[in-house]
Amino acid sequence: MSDNVKILVDAMGGDNAPEAAVKGCIDAINEKDGFEIILIGDEAKIKSILESNKFSSDRLKIQHAQEVITMEDTPTRAIRTKKDSSMVVGFNMLKEKSGDVFLSAGNTGALMAGSLFILGRIKGVDRPALATILPTKKNGVLLIDSGANPLCKPINFVQFAIMGYIYMRDVFGIKNPRVGLINVGSEDKKGNETIKQAHELLSKSNINFSGNIEGKDIPEGKVDVAVCDGFVGNIILKYTEGIGSFLFGEIKNIFGKNIISKLSALIVKNGLKAFKKKLDPSEYGGAPLLGVNGKVMKAHGNSNAKAFKNAVFKAYSFARSTIVEQIEEDFTNMEVEDSEQ
Amino acid sequence: MSDNVKILVDAMGGDNAPEAAVKGCIDAINEKDGFEIILIGDEAKIKSILESNKFSSDRLKIQHAQEVITMEDTPTRAIRTKKDSSMVVGFNMLKEKSGDVFLSAGNTGALMAGSLFILGRIKGVDRPALATILPTKKNGVLLIDSGANPLCKPINFVQFAIMGYIYMRDVFGIKNPRVGLINVGSEDKKGNETIKQAHELLSKSNINFSGNIEGKDIPEGKVDVAVCDGFVGNIILKYTEGIGSFLFGEIKNIFGKNIISKLSALIVKNGLKAFKKKLDPSEYGGAPLLGVNGKVMKAHGNSNAKAFKNAVFKAYSFARSTIVEQIEEDFTNMEVEDSEQ
Repeated sequence: MSDNVKILVDAMGGDNAPEAAVKGCIDAINEKDGFEIILIGDEAKIKSILESNKFSSDRLKIQHAQEVITMEDTPTRAIRTKKDSSMVVGFNMLKEKSGDVFLSAGNTGALMAGSLFILGRIKGVDRPALATILPTKKNGVLLIDSGANPLCKPINFVQFAIMGYIYMRDVFGIKNPRVGLINVGSEDKKGNETIKQAHELLSKSNINFSGNIEGKDIPEGKVDVAVCDGFVGNIILKYTEGIGSFLFGEIKNIFGKNIISKLSALIVKNGLKAFKKKLDPSEYGGAPLLGVNGKVMKAHGNSNAKAFKNAVFKAYSFARSTIVEQIEEDFTNMEVEDSEQ
Repeated sequence: MSDNVKILVDAMGGDNAPEAAVKGCIDAINEKDGFEIILIGDEAKIKSILESNKFSSDRLKIQHAQEVITMEDTPTRAIRTKKDSSMVVGFNMLKEKSGDVFLSAGNTGALMAGSLFILGRIKGVDRPALATILPTKKNGVLLIDSGANPLCKPINFVQFAIMGYIYMRDVFGIKNPRVGLINVGSEDKKGNETIKQAHELLSKSNINFSGNIEGKDIPEGKVDVAVCDGFVGNIILKYTEGIGSFLFGEIKNIFGKNIISKLSALIVKNGLKAFKKKLDPSEYGGAPLLGVNGKVMKAHGNSNAKAFKNAVFKAYSFARSTIVEQIEEDFTNMEVEDSEQ
């Protein structure tokens, strides 16, 4: 990786494509240095947005791609047949090292399929997983898998736990991250069969496993890594988004009642704003897909320009990290240990 | 049912038993008329709490039960072997019509097993489900199943949908409740195989089905009934609890900063208090187990006295409703329709 990070952006992915992606990239470049962006997608459409924003910079290039993978596409088939889609072109460019990281707000299933078919998995990882930081009373918790795998086997949970552990240790500098398994009760025997088996495997592993955690323990900050399948993870993630919007709607009503309450709002404005930011997915948006041979980052499907801008910054940090190499190394070491036993 | 509702209360169930249950029942009786309570459990322990609260009323009786089903017990075995547990005694009393409704904060799995073995299911319902109202931007949404079934078949989701529909129609007076299936995306093909099949069955049913909903749509109030398995439901329910506590902790910090912010807190105090109530499970606690031949209500496992008091009030309303009869009637009619086709 050169000093100047190259970020590949799928300009056609997400509900607000290509406007949100292109505008977000413009804003990102205007705000920070250290990276250049290659926008992948329909050149004419991208150019018209760049022009209407009167933007010119040699830090922003376009790679034309004819096709688009939509939310309705069947993931595997889309990756296999839409060879000239912005997503497949992006994956191939990442593989050929024409970029350091690939960012997309497109179809999650297709992003997963493309990662598996084009980049391949890290040895020892059966299913890659999305990892998202959720706000807590303390520093935040890594939710893994936050949406890549709607159905999981017990061993997948263990691999998610290990990847999450490495992420929180290396990216957030937490010495010995505590790992919890999201379940319907704290007792060992709780949950369905898959979860019970995952619990058993995690208990036997070398990881710093705190056991089962319940829904309420997540915002409490009881653990640093909260492990679940992608079905539960996606619902938690999007529920957080909805609850945030609900809460601040209610708070707005409470403060908006009369002139005195409006005045009192001014006094606590900054505090509330900071807290709102914590719960706003357009602030924390952008989740790395861990377990893949390459740096793939998923932006929220309904990302606006602001969310895209923040996801670009996250992609930049991700590109500069050695997390993929670290996961590779740790999984290799574990295999050596296993075979020595 | 006589004019005076008889509420059977499992005094030994829950994390704070028997204190919370007994105190909650005392408070309930002191606050409202129209019901009497039979506290089931260790007579000596219950009596000592009653005495220390200097309480005497002919509206509160004790039914002694020697054993207790704990959170660690295996549900089916516990129901079969602990014949003199407060829970099994409660179920038998409900069956024999010594009470109109049975309220317990005990082991959810055992409550489910006891319902199935002692009371039996309503014909046409394969798995009973817990139904909890969650706060939304609008009036609230019924989450079903909120924790009884950690693993479900596609047909279970359809039955939950129908029971939830009847509940919101008859208990909340909503004309034609909208039903949504909680999923990881709004598109038809999203989710795992079970969820996809559930979606297909729901689409073919006569119910007012709005299709898939995402986590963020729940607090938006996009539907009146949100259907999921009990694993997802329990996590959503408890996550809501955690987020509420997180939010009000942050608000307290924001307002506690200095004398001026403390003063401004006074201005919006009532509004915030009302909102806090909305998110407080000790306020909305108490979920009916629908699909059972009898009225069984689950209180939150960590219920305090206040939560118990509110659950008693909920049990009272539940006892006075005809919801069980209505579910019975509607499922019977559906079967007739099916056989006529």
